[in-house]
Amino acid sequence: MSTSASIRVTVWNEYIHERTKPEVTEIYPNGIHHTIAEAIRRLNPNCDVRTATLNEPEHGLSQDVLDATDVLLWWGHAGHDQVADDVVTRAWQRVLEGMGLIVLHSAHASKLFQRLMGTTCMLRWRDVGELERLWIVAPGHPILHGIEGDFVELPAAEMYGEHFDIPEPDQLLLISWFEGGEVFRSGCTFQRGQGRIFYFRPGHETFPIYHHPQVQQILVNAIEWAYTRSGNYRADGRHIPQSLNSIRK
Amino acid sequence: MSTSASIRVTVWNEYIHERTKPEVTEIYPNGIHHTIAEAIRRLNPNCDVRTATLNEPEHGLSQDVLDATDVLLWWGHAGHDQVADDVVTRAWQRVLEGMGLIVLHSAHASKLFQRLMGTTCMLRWRDVGELERLWIVAPGHPILHGIEGDFVELPAAEMYGEHFDIPEPDQLLLISWFEGGEVFRSGCTFQRGQGRIFYFRPGHETFPIYHHPQVQQILVNAIEWAYTRSGNYRADGRHIPQSLNSIRK
Amino acid sequence: MSTSASIRVTVWNEYIHERTKPEVTEIYPNGIHHTIAEAIRRLNPNCDVRTATLNEPEHGLSQDVLDATDVLLWWGHAGHDQVADDVVTRAWQRVLEGMGLIVLHSAHASKLFQRLMGTTCMLRWRDVGELERLWIVAPGHPILHGIEGDFVELPAAEMYGEHFDIPEPDQLLLISWFEGGEVFRSGCTFQRGQGRIFYFRPGHETFPIYHHPQVQQILVNAIEWAYTRSGNYRADGRHIPQSLNSIRK
Amino acid sequence: MSTSASIRVTVWNEYIHERTKPEVTEIYPNGIHHTIAEAIRRLNPNCDVRTATLNEPEHGLSQDVLDATDVLLWWGHAGHDQVADDVVTRAWQRVLEGMGLIVLHSAHASKLFQRLMGTTCMLRWRDVGELERLWIVAPGHPILHGIEGDFVELPAAEMYGEHFDIPEPDQLLLISWFEGGEVFRSGCTFQRGQGRIFYFRPGHETFPIYHHPQVQQILVNAIEWAYTRSGNYRADGRHIPQSLNSIRK
Repeated sequence: MSTSASIRVTVWNEYIHERTKPEVTEIYPNGIHHTIAEAIRRLNPNCDVRTATLNEPEHGLSQDVLDATDVLLWWGHAGHDQVADDVVTRAWQRVLEGMGLIVLHSAHASKLFQRLMGTTCMLRWRDVGELERLWIVAPGHPILHGIEGDFVELPAAEMYGEHFDIPEPDQLLLISWFEGGEVFRSGCTFQRGQGRIFYFRPGHETFPIYHHPQVQQILVNAIEWAYTRSGNYRADGRHIPQSLNSIRK
Repeated sequence: MSTSASIRVTVWNEYIHERTKPEVTEIYPNGIHHTIAEAIRRLNPNCDVRTATLNEPEHGLSQDVLDATDVLLWWGHAGHDQVADDVVTRAWQRVLEGMGLIVLHSAHASKLFQRLMGTTCMLRWRDVGELERLWIVAPGHPILHGIEGDFVELPAAEMYGEHFDIPEPDQLLLISWFEGGEVFRSGCTFQRGQGRIFYFRPGHETFPIYHHPQVQQILVNAIEWAYTRSGNYRADGRHIPQSLNSIRK
Repeated sequence: MSTSASIRVTVWNEYIHERTKPEVTEIYPNGIHHTIAEAIRRLNPNCDVRTATLNEPEHGLSQDVLDATDVLLWWGHAGHDQVADDVVTRAWQRVLEGMGLIVLHSAHASKLFQRLMGTTCMLRWRDVGELERLWIVAPGHPILHGIEGDFVELPAAEMYGEHFDIPEPDQLLLISWFEGGEVFRSGCTFQRGQGRIFYFRPGHETFPIYHHPQVQQILVNAIEWAYTRSGNYRADGRHIPQSLNSIRK
Repeated sequence: MSTSASIRVTVWNEYIHERTKPEVTEIYPNGIHHTIAEAIRRLNPNCDVRTATLNEPEHGLSQDVLDATDVLLWWGHAGHDQVADDVVTRAWQRVLEGMGLIVLHSAHASKLFQRLMGTTCMLRWRDVGELERLWIVAPGHPILHGIEGDFVELPAAEMYGEHFDIPEPDQLLLISWFEGGEVFRSGCTFQRGQGRIFYFRPGHETFPIYHHPQVQQILVNAIEWAYTRSGNYRADGRHIPQSLNSIRK
């Protein structure tokens, strides 16, 4: 898809751990959102990037901000409950209208992702810092453009293991191997309404995941993939009084 | 799947129109739920069928009833709002645990189906009584067992037209052709957690749809298909403290 | 996906009917391939378009031509048998390597499409010139960009009807309604290896289908969608002698 | 699906290694086919099981045998090339007509599976005997009925690793973790025509895989799942001269 216009990106982060846990502040001094936003701007100057966090009014996601967002990235972990239901509903409606959504790591448990999936989105986990290999199972997919080789390797990660309670993804892009014995569907695409969704597993706050060049490349590719030049089609329960068939009624 | 034990079926119907619109009472004197329940018992004596309606305490869907239900059928139209949220949540959890769900006609707009789909589930409609042909696009599927020929024909039906705002079905079984010019994905399967879901379009209350032998056959087949002999696997956010790999840590 | 480099397109057409049936020559004086190629160049100057026909040496599809083709369009009808098996194999391998493929109308029965699908790809048909409506079931999909409204209407077309013996498409974009009573899955996407495939139904040679602006728009969109900036990943039966796990063996 | 009639099963094995490699003869003295057939008869007396091998006339798969087979299991490794093309075509047609197919281990490279998939079906491999865990990603699926816990463990197996060049499975049931660092989609379902296909990875001849109780249970479940009580629908390129719509033409 040619993108001559800017892609308007909003990076949402609850921004709790970076301000409360010194080991995290060290990795993300200005917050995960700024690390991600800076990487996007650097790798794709065609993106117009803003950030938003939990503590801002309306969590930084007013109707105007969401209406002006083409692709939303979401990182949350400890504060899912604190996200207001009406903001979730607003974002959910925007996805159905065509706003792309990239769901990062622990945001599998966000209200927004759970609402779009219709399942619990729960999984197993272990936080000891173990080797992770994200194997490519969909070579050639635009989200994986520029990733050399057969897997992305993260020397230390928090394990997520199956069973991951999601609907069957539309397409499975990455499967993770963990040193401790588990596997996980780490890169999954879904479509809801006109909106494209990408779930991407890595990103535990105590590891410098969002500084990793291949992780950044995947995020930038995912933004391009998730961008839908919106049509004007609405799913709207419309009553059609007349037959469209010119021969009938 | 061999089914040596009974399949415990609950047919839920809001049971409003049959008691308020004479033209509907004439077609379904004891309610849509009884017409469907009788057909199931006649066609598959291996089914143990009960009914439940909106006006009963807890809408007839207490935790005990749901725990003892292998497959739930749902017909609703005018009373979606009146279904209590906690009953919806209860039913939703049972689907994830493995209870099958058959969603009938206007129940596309039920809270339960919308929750499992994550979309609006809206569509177009026109109620003039027009010819409908449900074409088979998945021949050989167990839900279509015993259906002769290439389509099921309903001489008079309420039109539902695309765009039907659902996630892409796991499998598409039937596509409807309507006299007035529209098409619709009329038979769709989905999986959520361990639960199998079948959406089946026909069933407007002013037409004798549930008396139609092929419609009854499809419902009975769908009950067998949707029945999951449940495992004990739970998606439960479990922390795994130790690696499962006996060689490591 | 930003496409700064040209997309190299080859439009393959058997070019039999246009030279043997006067009613077809009238609609496509230089052949269907030239009508399509001209439309692509006009609508997307970023495309570098060539044509090839059955009667050329190697059917115009030498290894060099295929290696230099990013997206191949294929129209065939009466001459499927005449396409040499080694040319089919060559094109098949290129699809797996990442060459996009757009399969038009009667090319459902081409050796290349049948090979990629693994099924017969057969269907029903009737050639009386009847109204066709291609309803959009995946609004927002890049292949449908710029298509206003809810359907594309063709006043006279050759009917194709279900059951269309293909594997379940990865995504279903369009469903056709025909005046005579049939339906058909008219816009379907598939992935094979690194190659993206789009089957698009309309295109009977006795109707001016490829002059229709919306049909042309869809073809141009499909070329952009099918274009995969190829990776270097090969599915190659490779023996891995050593464990990749640096901790083990 | 109630199976009151027998399921007629044919277990096909090339039967080369068991007669040429002593270490394999020791594990499968009468051949892999007999080990599997005996397990099926023991676990599901409702199955009527025969065997067939490469060296028999027509490889034991005459038209009569195939017409009388409801589900075919296929194990091959060194002799894929020796399977006659017309026998492959015969089996392929039977799958489209509704014969179930279970593809075992190295049969990923069989002519029959490659033909049904349309891809190379190639993968990576390493034969050192390493720990394999097949994680369940579709709990509740009938093929996994009776499998306790979250994974099936094989203490020593031949590694198969991604990228496995297959079309995206209709459903992914199992993902393998290998001690050496790889992952693999080990349990995959596909549909071609009216036929159901299950690819199941484990089964290298130098390990006693087919003696493993959970492997046997999965095979027996898969036979029940793959059994399609055939309809009479044929995909047959039929010309329909008249409109089916009684109102038109």
